[in-house]
Amino acid sequence: MPDSALSGGDIVLVTIVLAISIAALAFAAYLVRAVIAADQGTASMREIAKAVQEGAAAYLRRQFRTLGVFAVIVFLLLLVLPVADGGWGTRIGRAVFFLVGALFSAMVGFIGMTLATRGNVRVAAAAQSGGYLPSFRIAYRTGGVVGMITVGLGLFGSALALLLFDETAPVVLEGFGFGGALLAMFMRVGGGIFTKAADVGADLVGKVEAGIPEDDPRNAATIADNVGDNVGDCAGMAADLFESYAVTLVAALILGQVFFGAVGMVFPLVVAAIGVIASVVGILATNPGKGDSSGLAPINRGFFASAVASLVLVAAASFTVLPSVADIPDTAVSPQVLGFVAVLVGIVLAAAIQLLTGYFTETSRKPVQDVGRSSLTGPATVILSGISLGLESAVYAALLISGAVYGAFLVGGGAALYAVALAGCGLLTTAGVIVAMDTFGPVSDNAQGIAEMSGDIDEEGARVLTDLDAVGNTTKAITKGIAIATAVLAATALFGSYNAQIEVALEEAGDTLGTAFSLVNPNNVVGAVLGAAVVFFFSGLAISAVSRAAGRVVFEVREQFRTRPGIMDYSERPDYSAVVDICTKDSLRELATPGLLAVLAPVAVGFGLGFGPLAAYLVGAIAAGTLMAVFLANSGGAWDNAKKMVEDGAYGGKGSESHAATVIGDTVGDPFKDTAGPAINPLIKVMNLVALIIAPAVVSTSVGADQNTTLRVLIAVAAALVIVGAVVVSKRRSIVVGGASTDSSSSLTTSVP
Amino acid sequence: MPDSALSGGDIVLVTIVLAISIAALAFAAYLVRAVIAADQGTASMREIAKAVQEGAAAYLRRQFRTLGVFAVIVFLLLLVLPVADGGWGTRIGRAVFFLVGALFSAMVGFIGMTLATRGNVRVAAAAQSGGYLPSFRIAYRTGGVVGMITVGLGLFGSALALLLFDETAPVVLEGFGFGGALLAMFMRVGGGIFTKAADVGADLVGKVEAGIPEDDPRNAATIADNVGDNVGDCAGMAADLFESYAVTLVAALILGQVFFGAVGMVFPLVVAAIGVIASVVGILATNPGKGDSSGLAPINRGFFASAVASLVLVAAASFTVLPSVADIPDTAVSPQVLGFVAVLVGIVLAAAIQLLTGYFTETSRKPVQDVGRSSLTGPATVILSGISLGLESAVYAALLISGAVYGAFLVGGGAALYAVALAGCGLLTTAGVIVAMDTFGPVSDNAQGIAEMSGDIDEEGARVLTDLDAVGNTTKAITKGIAIATAVLAATALFGSYNAQIEVALEEAGDTLGTAFSLVNPNNVVGAVLGAAVVFFFSGLAISAVSRAAGRVVFEVREQFRTRPGIMDYSERPDYSAVVDICTKDSLRELATPGLLAVLAPVAVGFGLGFGPLAAYLVGAIAAGTLMAVFLANSGGAWDNAKKMVEDGAYGGKGSESHAATVIGDTVGDPFKDTAGPAINPLIKVMNLVALIIAPAVVSTSVGADQNTTLRVLIAVAAALVIVGAVVVSKRRSIVVGGASTDSSSSLTTSVP
Repeated sequence: MPDSALSGGDIVLVTIVLAISIAALAFAAYLVRAVIAADQGTASMREIAKAVQEGAAAYLRRQFRTLGVFAVIVFLLLLVLPVADGGWGTRIGRAVFFLVGALFSAMVGFIGMTLATRGNVRVAAAAQSGGYLPSFRIAYRTGGVVGMITVGLGLFGSALALLLFDETAPVVLEGFGFGGALLAMFMRVGGGIFTKAADVGADLVGKVEAGIPEDDPRNAATIADNVGDNVGDCAGMAADLFESYAVTLVAALILGQVFFGAVGMVFPLVVAAIGVIASVVGILATNPGKGDSSGLAPINRGFFASAVASLVLVAAASFTVLPSVADIPDTAVSPQVLGFVAVLVGIVLAAAIQLLTGYFTETSRKPVQDVGRSSLTGPATVILSGISLGLESAVYAALLISGAVYGAFLVGGGAALYAVALAGCGLLTTAGVIVAMDTFGPVSDNAQGIAEMSGDIDEEGARVLTDLDAVGNTTKAITKGIAIATAVLAATALFGSYNAQIEVALEEAGDTLGTAFSLVNPNNVVGAVLGAAVVFFFSGLAISAVSRAAGRVVFEVREQFRTRPGIMDYSERPDYSAVVDICTKDSLRELATPGLLAVLAPVAVGFGLGFGPLAAYLVGAIAAGTLMAVFLANSGGAWDNAKKMVEDGAYGGKGSESHAATVIGDTVGDPFKDTAGPAINPLIKVMNLVALIIAPAVVSTSVGADQNTTLRVLIAVAAALVIVGAVVVSKRRSIVVGGASTDSSSSLTTSVP
Repeated sequence: MPDSALSGGDIVLVTIVLAISIAALAFAAYLVRAVIAADQGTASMREIAKAVQEGAAAYLRRQFRTLGVFAVIVFLLLLVLPVADGGWGTRIGRAVFFLVGALFSAMVGFIGMTLATRGNVRVAAAAQSGGYLPSFRIAYRTGGVVGMITVGLGLFGSALALLLFDETAPVVLEGFGFGGALLAMFMRVGGGIFTKAADVGADLVGKVEAGIPEDDPRNAATIADNVGDNVGDCAGMAADLFESYAVTLVAALILGQVFFGAVGMVFPLVVAAIGVIASVVGILATNPGKGDSSGLAPINRGFFASAVASLVLVAAASFTVLPSVADIPDTAVSPQVLGFVAVLVGIVLAAAIQLLTGYFTETSRKPVQDVGRSSLTGPATVILSGISLGLESAVYAALLISGAVYGAFLVGGGAALYAVALAGCGLLTTAGVIVAMDTFGPVSDNAQGIAEMSGDIDEEGARVLTDLDAVGNTTKAITKGIAIATAVLAATALFGSYNAQIEVALEEAGDTLGTAFSLVNPNNVVGAVLGAAVVFFFSGLAISAVSRAAGRVVFEVREQFRTRPGIMDYSERPDYSAVVDICTKDSLRELATPGLLAVLAPVAVGFGLGFGPLAAYLVGAIAAGTLMAVFLANSGGAWDNAKKMVEDGAYGGKGSESHAATVIGDTVGDPFKDTAGPAINPLIKVMNLVALIIAPAVVSTSVGADQNTTLRVLIAVAAALVIVGAVVVSKRRSIVVGGASTDSSSSLTTSVP
């Protein structure tokens, strides 16, 4: 391995990077002032917004309390687990940075959500008083804050770790990435269950049973629905993108050190710092113009401005920071060219995914129109066409991502894994803009909800908000595509690190790798099948958790209609907080099973079957996860927009049979696109990082002098039993509930409180 | 490698096996006589049956003509492709046995279907005149014939090849397996599209639009629907199980030779011959008794009788045929114990899958009841609960299959792959019974259709047929689970052969394997993602093909209602053959894209990315394929039975909102369970065998003296372009069609002729 202690010049460079990360946070603070200064709208709007703010904050507080306990347990486990090639200082550093990563992830989520719940009402107010332009600007600026905080904190943590720990920073950063990913996964799953339980529940009991419109104040679930948008689409998503950012940087630093020593660690940070500058460019460049056909045009302009800025700066950085020659086998190009091309691959991939996702989910393109037309023959054909659209589009996305990995592999030669990690960094140079456009979605969605509920909006204002909401649907789908691409790149790169850990540990145990990693070993085939199985299981659990929680919402709202007859003629107020409470409790309870599965399944496989099958397990999970994530996101996005298409007047418009068919499609798509699908991205990374962290322990218990089969099997069985127990408990929940619901009037699928 | 020329004793043993295979065919002939001798029912029944027979035969003739051309092309390619470690004799043998395999696969399909179209009317007649017992017996005996032909021909081909080619038989048998798998895949896909296009089309235009019941003679698509049951569920399925049988035997022979020489090849044949005997036992033991709660009870009895008979005989055979010691490293047990335990694992796996699938798809168990109950809140919750049921049950099936592979791996030690292959043989000792119970499904389904259409059935007779049909639904789902298990076992075992081929070829080229097969190589991760992608793509294509073809059926039936106003009051006869014709043409046209994808994708990956990524591609396909196949089969099966549950009176019964919701679920499930899902099994094996066959060519063009990058890239690009072309053509088909259908009254999703 090349010399990897930081030189004086390196330290200066990293310090500059640290300064840039702080500048990013300062820019975020500047944007916050602009958003907060805007008008807060009518009293009624403010009142509703306040209810949403309180509900969302209460949920997050409760979630953090639960997860805090979990985080402390993991912190202690990290202190116990051995580190390959490092002493106690590294071990403690890793554990502490785990907490830092988790904290940052939580902060990004919390700040993002807090701001979104302030931005939404101001967007609604601006739509009424100022029209399209100011309304758009506030929504996008709100997103911009979240974007800058995401990149700022990610970069700050990484640069700080490098300055503090120098050569051992990569191992410490494993902890940072793991903390971020773990928190993000829980926030994604919990928030995803919350938002869709409220949404599906509200729709089923409101639109379907009571025949009242969406966002009607008589529906006790409306506030919960709006809270859900914030805790799921906003807090969960922001945390998710933070972890994507952090884990990708971590992977690049680990591999950079292996191949190029200190400069290999500094360069990814420089690329990320460039991303901060490019994001500022992109955010400032996003201004709607007169000639824009839709709100998507300025957003795309901002993205491409940011991409071009990155490209130019990265080119300059590659040829100044990286050495012109290095001792890497099988590499046809210089490190400078390698660095530049790899980052370029990532930037191009981000743009390609943006275009592809747009094609498959925009209302104006053929795929969604085909789904819309299939509504003429009823819900079954809507479902089938959406599913085949999702399956096919997942393949195209997988081809793009595979192409990028393979491209990086080809240019990287002997340093292929580093090139893959750098492509990940390239993908994320536009992260600030991507987070901004994603957050734009829930903010606009909420603004519409608040305006609708308050009743204080005229037709023109409502039209503005509907337009913004439709744009938000597409930007949300794009972000999901990019997030899963980062997962594949980061996970592929982390394999290099896994391999290195295993080899070091084997050497310590006096053994060698042999053919343990061979694809053609039957036990490795088993590992791959299990990896794919976890993705399917996780998706199934997330979807059924939403069904169960939605059932409880339906029951509660029905009860309120029954016990408070005045609700229907507006003489009585529904108890909004009761539904928020149900969603809060249920989503926290329901996230346990998929969460434990993600953390413990690699432990069971690793200790139970060995480090070869564990690697295969990760490959199986990456392969199935990539496709499943895009499938779920795009099917869901297409159904949502097909519904919008019909609501805009196609095939009979609102109230027609076609509309009913697309509403069914949209309801099926809700947990696909907002619960199961997006959670697969952090799932893959959590599992990879767990594998990385347990690797030395797996090796030391299975080979060499310290070999301890009893302990190994015991750990595996314990992990498996906890998973089985969690699954049984969640099934039992539905049994108890189902048993009481023989009275068919009081059941959804299964649930009675 | 141990000495692998057959000894005199071996030859005697194989000759006995050959005789047993012929006896199996004779027993089939005996059963045929019993079936044909039964009463053919009323004139009206006979007329309908004749129309179904003609339609089905016409379809298969046309399909065989198309596939014949394709088979000849592949035959020629096989002559061109090099064989690792073998001369021209082997090459020609492999090509000829490819044709034999294809022919046998076609024969099994054709005979099975011909007989099913004779059996169905006799089952209907017996239900009317004789009641439950004779009706059941004819249906099951019809299945028994197909079962015995399947095992008879599979065993005959394998034993013959071994006698003729001795040591080189394994390579020759690659051709046999490939021929069987290729034909089966096309028959599965083509038949699957046919059957569901007719079924979905008939339902949409009949039940939904015209408001006439299922199987009503006024619906022009009814005959096509019945033809579809035969060409899809019957011919396609029989061919599929034949190839499962053949490919598993082939894998066992190949690996047996590697580890144990001649006896290693003979033993799997002995196990298969035992399977023939066990199947006869099972078929004869299947007789409904007075105390049976349902038709499933005697079928289960037959299966378990067959399993026990296998077990006893295999124990005896293991300890007489196999040697008591052998020179295999890392093996704790003797070859005798290894052989017995491995086969035992397979037999137990078959029983476990049977129980698991029953649990998830039977009307009386909790999962289907949960789906049924979700109909109270409408179609969206039915779809969601069915999907999460499918996803979860796929995981349990994957765990069982993984457990079996891992069990065989543990007992096999150094000969792990052989043990895996033997577990596959164990799984298939009950193949005769499994095919019989599967064929029982479409025969009963058709009998009900014919009886309904003819109007010549009383209430009691109708009840008998409904009961038989419900049992058939579950047996069909069980067979699919077992079929996918054979795919995983065979594919895992074939990896050993792939590995050996690559190593031999590399040695010839003066190179070594190195870390080319390492799981942690980024290019291998790409390969795995592509493998999973093909499974998703294939499923998406199959589902959208059904939608397109169903659209054309809807259009045709509508036209007939319009142009022949007398149909509705029975004064005019609909033109049934026109719909059969549409289904025939469309399904043959639509099968091209998924078919080419299956054959050419491994070619593109192998020549384009190399033999390492090709292995990873296969692993990705196995992992994703296992889960996707079970997911699709079980979701579909559960929806179908949830509908039956409501039709039997639950949650409002026929005509209620709940019923409408479950009909939507069932329609979505149709292409899941009968088109996309079951075709994944032959897909996996076709891709594995293609990889095996091109392996030497991939190596010789990429390393060593004959290295030819231009040729290699050219082949990869050509293969990729053909796939892209096929996809574009099938999309264009939907564009043309969609364009013409702006008149919304004449469109389904997309289709106008």
